[in-house]
Amino acid sequence: MKSPSSLAFLTEALRRLPGVGPKSAQRMAYHLMQHDRDGAAMLGRALSQAVERVQHCAMCNTFTESAVCETCLDAERNAALLCVVETPGDQLMIEQTLTFKGLYFVLMGRLSPLDGIGPKDIHLEKLISRATDGIVQEVVLATNFTNEGEATAHYISETLKARGLKVSRLARGVPVGGELEYVDAGTIARAMLDRRTT
Amino acid sequence: MKSPSSLAFLTEALRRLPGVGPKSAQRMAYHLMQHDRDGAAMLGRALSQAVERVQHCAMCNTFTESAVCETCLDAERNAALLCVVETPGDQLMIEQTLTFKGLYFVLMGRLSPLDGIGPKDIHLEKLISRATDGIVQEVVLATNFTNEGEATAHYISETLKARGLKVSRLARGVPVGGELEYVDAGTIARAMLDRRTT
Repeated sequence: MKSPSSLAFLTEALRRLPGVGPKSAQRMAYHLMQHDRDGAAMLGRALSQAVERVQHCAMCNTFTESAVCETCLDAERNAALLCVVETPGDQLMIEQTLTFKGLYFVLMGRLSPLDGIGPKDIHLEKLISRATDGIVQEVVLATNFTNEGEATAHYISETLKARGLKVSRLARGVPVGGELEYVDAGTIARAMLDRRTT
Repeated sequence: MKSPSSLAFLTEALRRLPGVGPKSAQRMAYHLMQHDRDGAAMLGRALSQAVERVQHCAMCNTFTESAVCETCLDAERNAALLCVVETPGDQLMIEQTLTFKGLYFVLMGRLSPLDGIGPKDIHLEKLISRATDGIVQEVVLATNFTNEGEATAHYISETLKARGLKVSRLARGVPVGGELEYVDAGTIARAMLDRRTT
């Protein structure tokens, strides 16, 4: 007995999703065929449509269906501030804080030499020409505080400062609601070094 | 800022997959758009193709692309034996043991009154007409040994025995390699009751 080939093909294709192994893929395929054919058809259409329509914003590099995304076209935003993030998800998180009214640049990744991801893969040329448009005055680096994120921030910082731009980084410190007893020493050390006069 | 609508549609559609929540769906959508557009296109095609082609075998109810599946068409199999399983995955597991050379019937589910799954949802009418074709002599119940699986086996057993068929159930007992000290009491009790003369 072997699976019918359309089902085997579907199972194989589902494994292309991140975090989906052979068992999950099989379960998903069976579920869709048995209980949710409408969902399967819808997902099929959504994928084709997204592959066809979704492209990168010419200004901020995020996903968009037009040449320039809505955020970049928003005239009420402060074009002198440019926030650099790793992913559209990170951008969304910052938007939700309502503390930033500038524009964004989405790297769509982070420097990671061990994985063969270099400056070219994070669209650094595009960022440089974007940041040196004469309007941007400060670049806020909001990459993650992981090793790769920090390295990426450092690299971008050096590159942009060499071009005379003001570059800043999100503050590191004790999280809101954090109790010192349970915060790691590295974070406390950083918070001590970056302490602010009140 | 909001996600471009094709991407939002894709994220929504990915949530139809079992075990995929909003965060995973977003991660999958971004991954496909950023790193694996070929995979996205392939998955789209696989879904459309599967929705279009995959149907249920007229004899055993499993997934197939023809009217009757390969297993049911296999003339070398013993048509007097019919093994009832919950899912195609279970059927695959039994096939891999190479201990069963009869035919199968796949319920595509199990009785679960609390979830509103009754005899009709597990294709019981189809099973009855399949089992009473005059060729089948013994029905082997291989539903899971969970509460729902046991209830399903009991229900099917009563229904088929009333029609004069021989009905058997997979043996319960201590698993191969099992040490009594670490096996639960219920399993040992069952193994004691079902002990075999050697």
